[in-house]
Amino acid sequence: MSDSFKEILETFPNPHPNRDYLIETVCPEFTSVCPKTGQPDFGTLTITYIANEHCFELKSLKLYLQEYRNHGAFYEDVTNLILNDLVKITQPKWMQIIADFTPRGGIRTKVTVEYPSLAIHSQG
Amino acid sequence: MSDSFKEILETFPNPHPNRDYLIETVCPEFTSVCPKTGQPDFGTLTITYIANEHCFELKSLKLYLQEYRNHGAFYEDVTNLILNDLVKITQPKWMQIIADFTPRGGIRTKVTVEYPSLAIHSQG
Amino acid sequence: MSDSFKEILETFPNPHPNRDYLIETVCPEFTSVCPKTGQPDFGTLTITYIANEHCFELKSLKLYLQEYRNHGAFYEDVTNLILNDLVKITQPKWMQIIADFTPRGGIRTKVTVEYPSLAIHSQG
Amino acid sequence: MSDSFKEILETFPNPHPNRDYLIETVCPEFTSVCPKTGQPDFGTLTITYIANEHCFELKSLKLYLQEYRNHGAFYEDVTNLILNDLVKITQPKWMQIIADFTPRGGIRTKVTVEYPSLAIHSQG
Amino acid sequence: MSDSFKEILETFPNPHPNRDYLIETVCPEFTSVCPKTGQPDFGTLTITYIANEHCFELKSLKLYLQEYRNHGAFYEDVTNLILNDLVKITQPKWMQIIADFTPRGGIRTKVTVEYPSLAIHSQG
Amino acid sequence: MSDSFKEILETFPNPHPNRDYLIETVCPEFTSVCPKTGQPDFGTLTITYIANEHCFELKSLKLYLQEYRNHGAFYEDVTNLILNDLVKITQPKWMQIIADFTPRGGIRTKVTVEYPSLAIHSQG
Amino acid sequence: MSDSFKEILETFPNPHPNRDYLIETVCPEFTSVCPKTGQPDFGTLTITYIANEHCFELKSLKLYLQEYRNHGAFYEDVTNLILNDLVKITQPKWMQIIADFTPRGGIRTKVTVEYPSLAIHSQG
Amino acid sequence: MSDSFKEILETFPNPHPNRDYLIETVCPEFTSVCPKTGQPDFGTLTITYIANEHCFELKSLKLYLQEYRNHGAFYEDVTNLILNDLVKITQPKWMQIIADFTPRGGIRTKVTVEYPSLAIHSQG
Amino acid sequence: MSDSFKEILETFPNPHPNRDYLIETVCPEFTSVCPKTGQPDFGTLTITYIANEHCFELKSLKLYLQEYRNHGAFYEDVTNLILNDLVKITQPKWMQIIADFTPRGGIRTKVTVEYPSLAIHSQG
Amino acid sequence: MSDSFKEILETFPNPHPNRDYLIETVCPEFTSVCPKTGQPDFGTLTITYIANEHCFELKSLKLYLQEYRNHGAFYEDVTNLILNDLVKITQPKWMQIIADFTPRGGIRTKVTVEYPSLAIHSQG
Ligand SMILES: [Ca+2]
Ligand SMILES: [Ca+2]
Ligand SMILES: [Ca+2]
Ligand SMILES: [Ca+2]
Ligand SMILES: [Ca+2]
Ligand SMILES: [Ca+2]
Ligand SMILES: [Ca+2]
Ligand SMILES: [Ca+2]
Ligand SMILES: [Ca+2]
Ligand SMILES: [Ca+2]
Ligand SMILES: [Ca+2]
Ligand SMILES: [Ca+2]
Ligand SMILES: [Ca+2]
Ligand SMILES: [Ca+2]
Ligand SMILES: [Ca+2]
Ligand SMILES: [Ca+2]
Repeated sequence: MSDSFKEILETFPNPHPNRDYLIETVCPEFTSVCPKTGQPDFGTLTITYIANEHCFELKSLKLYLQEYRNHGAFYEDVTNLILNDLVKITQPKWMQIIADFTPRGGIRTKVTVEYPSLAIHSQG
Repeated sequence: MSDSFKEILETFPNPHPNRDYLIETVCPEFTSVCPKTGQPDFGTLTITYIANEHCFELKSLKLYLQEYRNHGAFYEDVTNLILNDLVKITQPKWMQIIADFTPRGGIRTKVTVEYPSLAIHSQG
Repeated sequence: MSDSFKEILETFPNPHPNRDYLIETVCPEFTSVCPKTGQPDFGTLTITYIANEHCFELKSLKLYLQEYRNHGAFYEDVTNLILNDLVKITQPKWMQIIADFTPRGGIRTKVTVEYPSLAIHSQG
Repeated sequence: MSDSFKEILETFPNPHPNRDYLIETVCPEFTSVCPKTGQPDFGTLTITYIANEHCFELKSLKLYLQEYRNHGAFYEDVTNLILNDLVKITQPKWMQIIADFTPRGGIRTKVTVEYPSLAIHSQG
Repeated sequence: MSDSFKEILETFPNPHPNRDYLIETVCPEFTSVCPKTGQPDFGTLTITYIANEHCFELKSLKLYLQEYRNHGAFYEDVTNLILNDLVKITQPKWMQIIADFTPRGGIRTKVTVEYPSLAIHSQG
Repeated sequence: MSDSFKEILETFPNPHPNRDYLIETVCPEFTSVCPKTGQPDFGTLTITYIANEHCFELKSLKLYLQEYRNHGAFYEDVTNLILNDLVKITQPKWMQIIADFTPRGGIRTKVTVEYPSLAIHSQG
Repeated sequence: MSDSFKEILETFPNPHPNRDYLIETVCPEFTSVCPKTGQPDFGTLTITYIANEHCFELKSLKLYLQEYRNHGAFYEDVTNLILNDLVKITQPKWMQIIADFTPRGGIRTKVTVEYPSLAIHSQG
Repeated sequence: MSDSFKEILETFPNPHPNRDYLIETVCPEFTSVCPKTGQPDFGTLTITYIANEHCFELKSLKLYLQEYRNHGAFYEDVTNLILNDLVKITQPKWMQIIADFTPRGGIRTKVTVEYPSLAIHSQG
Repeated sequence: MSDSFKEILETFPNPHPNRDYLIETVCPEFTSVCPKTGQPDFGTLTITYIANEHCFELKSLKLYLQEYRNHGAFYEDVTNLILNDLVKITQPKWMQIIADFTPRGGIRTKVTVEYPSLAIHSQG
Repeated sequence: MSDSFKEILETFPNPHPNRDYLIETVCPEFTSVCPKTGQPDFGTLTITYIANEHCFELKSLKLYLQEYRNHGAFYEDVTNLILNDLVKITQPKWMQIIADFTPRGGIRTKVTVEYPSLAIHSQG
């Protein structure tokens, strides 16, 4: 996956950088293509973060996510890659992405990634 | 944004100042105007606080929020500004505002701000 | 508000005083009168406690709450006063009341009080 | 209440005694008789435990709970007594019973008991 | 239960092994056979884990679970055995399985197992 | 029950008398007193009608229904009497009232009355 | 089944016999005993009718239904027998009973009976 | 209310005029101002129609409805006026508008208008 | 598919053959095998009928449906075949089966069959 | 739109052509592209029909609908065109498509088309 998707993302200055606060963005219309079967996948992305100096701009986020429409992507991989892109662009204090995909073969999958660390469960 | 909106807010003495207790007020009819597109935005504000000496009066809160009806306001900014106003007027021990906006372009946004600090997640 | 309402409340001995356990009572038919407008208010009271030696008797609780039917009472005040009465009568180890009122003017309010202290949020 | 109800309960050996794990059993068809009014009461029991050497057998649990069908029992008392019986029979590492009864006189009650201790709230 | 079921499970390399993140897989179509009555049981398995070097492959998980279709299995036992198999195959940092079975005789059961330890409740 | 309650009701001219259309008004805060037990009853009234020349005014409807707050009234009777009052005041082409009361003794009751006739079921 | 159950039922005069209207009574706490297995059954009865001269009294209905608590009764039979009793006592213009029983063996059953005729489906 | 609002509405040719089919458009963000109190009202409009030669264009519908944002309008009147405008512009075979407003004073109102006639209930 | 499945079904005499009434049986645990892929299918069968002289016995119905557990069956075909079997065995006045299958490939299917005729839609 | 999409659709012989019955297929993952804005649209298609000699095959339906993924299509037009294709291929006795699209600009749209005729509302 090239850096070109990330370049679509735009930011604006955090209007209240002196206060830590949460911004949650829910994108229920994420779709990509399974690299193994060529079939489309569908999911809802919930992105939550505490901004530092920069917030991501919503219209550019929408266009960024649309780049995956015809792009091959595994569940676990694509969730981590989107987190990487959004962290690089906004340099947040904290960010979490929950990607909840629709069922395939009677089984559904949800991936939760965090930056800089997974607060709960992790004993790594 | 002038101070004039804040001046609409009225308070009454906390009837039980010796006990810390939570007051939650849900306002599902908040509407403002997007400064970029000129289109109306809609959201639900949930304001929760532990009062010190003063509680905000509900009728004045309603009139205060109605001032945003034809006022340009970005999601992240307006949530912080309302918190600032309510904190200045009531000087609470703790206050939180959750602003949950309706979808635009298939994406919806929720902003959570707290005074004096964001209890969870913040490593600032 | 006189002590006469409290005198309606009756107790029975806690049948298992050697074990701390929770009793939750939900009263969805609470109604009082707004002292400012004279209009009726409606709400649901959820009373949870760890009894010491005494439990409150449910029929007497129902009659006690019915005393508010034609009684003027502000949201924040009445929730604290009911907690005071139930604490005096039962001397519990812990008690919480959540009073969730129906919307007025498009705004709804919920008040949460605890004895002896608000476990979360309080920095008083 | 005699010991005879408890004697209906049967156990089987915990198949994985070296791992602590939770077993939750939901019984939505519990019914007993109010000792004061003679009227039937109805509720849902949720029993959760970490077994030690013994698990309770589900068919015997069903028959045990059916013994209360024509038996007088107050909410608070019966929840504690069932916990006592199940603890005696299974000697668990931890056990909790939540008994959620249907409304009477517009009021509903839920009792939560734990062995060996109520993890949250208790300051006894 | 032979090892042959476990051999159906396949893994793929964790694409982001340097970040701890959660993968949740929900399988609502699990069915096995009660060893006592010969009657089919039905349940939903929710498998959540933090991968180390290996993730389990979803198609092989589906085929693995289908092996239980005509296999005798008690609730508590089968949940532990599936955890054992998935831990052996993936060597995760943390894994949890919640198995929620449909009602039998008006009673339903849910079993929660974790590796390496049950974070909450355990005082063993 | 005197005519005095009905006199509280006010009307305004139907703004579109040449078109038949439905007006539905839901009043979830109706409360009266059981004439037999003296205990308060609670219910939701749903009033639907096709106006002729007159519509009832909502503020006056609220005050009219509040007159029942301390008034003895049986379910079946009060629903019919309110229909009689609203029909006399507005002379509608068609009107229906559904009164859905909260449970008493584990039993709840709903009464449906129509003017000029019950369209379905009636073989009178 | 003797006539003695029916004799528990009491009526009161229909307060508005000149208007056909619907009375719906929901009884979610019906329980009887399966004649084959001796196990308790549970269900919700919804009784709807257009009264003629007589309405059934709710307290007597509750006591009447409680007579089935330790009485053997098949689903299809008991629903018809209760309809027969209520029709004999009230002589309604129309009456319907829907009896919705909780699952047994993963299967649940609902029986719908009407007097004088099943309006829909019947081609008898 | 001038005709100027209606002039905002634009149409496009029905792409399948030889087949009668339903188009339903749900607008949950309608807001106007109460002419009596000056307070904002909020509601959801559901517009359903069978087009003849013309369909209304969605962007122009949004702008048309936004004209009511600071416009005084009674519930019953505004619903009829919007129907009049949409009928004039599109000349449909059939059209229905359901306007469901949020509660005021504990009472909520829903208005249903149809062109050319109200299929059910009307005996005008 | 042989007749042997049908022979598992047992009936009992309709206890009220002089009254037409509805019996609805919901079986949420139906499972068969896709003849094309060999993969298991899952669905909920809702069987509703007006009995003539015979009702089907529930335990035998459960065993009959379990025969499909390892049997190849297409959605449309199996729903019709089960209707044929139940009609042959009970000779009902009317019977309907709704078979609602879980999603496959993001698509779910529901089949509705009736005897002797599909009341709505059919112009055959 | 060329005929090439339709050619993807495959059929199989109706296994019970002598009985009229309903087949409902729900496709919640339909997505196309707005011809005006170039933005993706998302919707759920519910296809219900009474087959004549032919049923459409589900895998081919899925592939057929995926052809719209990068294809420009207006709501009203695409719903009619899909109906035309499915009717040509299967020659059903009756078919209905309900296309429910996700919100755009706070407004959502649902289109309902039927073959051979819209049973309700149509006065064409
Ligand atoms: Ca999930
Ligand atoms: Ca809350
Ligand atoms: Ca949200
Ligand atoms: Ca609770
Ligand atoms: Ca609330
Ligand atoms: Ca409860
Ligand atoms: Ca989860
Ligand atoms: Ca459970
Ligand atoms: Ca009801
Ligand atoms: Ca049912
Ligand atoms: Ca609709
Ligand atoms: Ca409504
Ligand atoms: Ca049904
Ligand atoms: Ca379905
Ligand atoms: Ca359907
Ligand atoms: Ca819709």
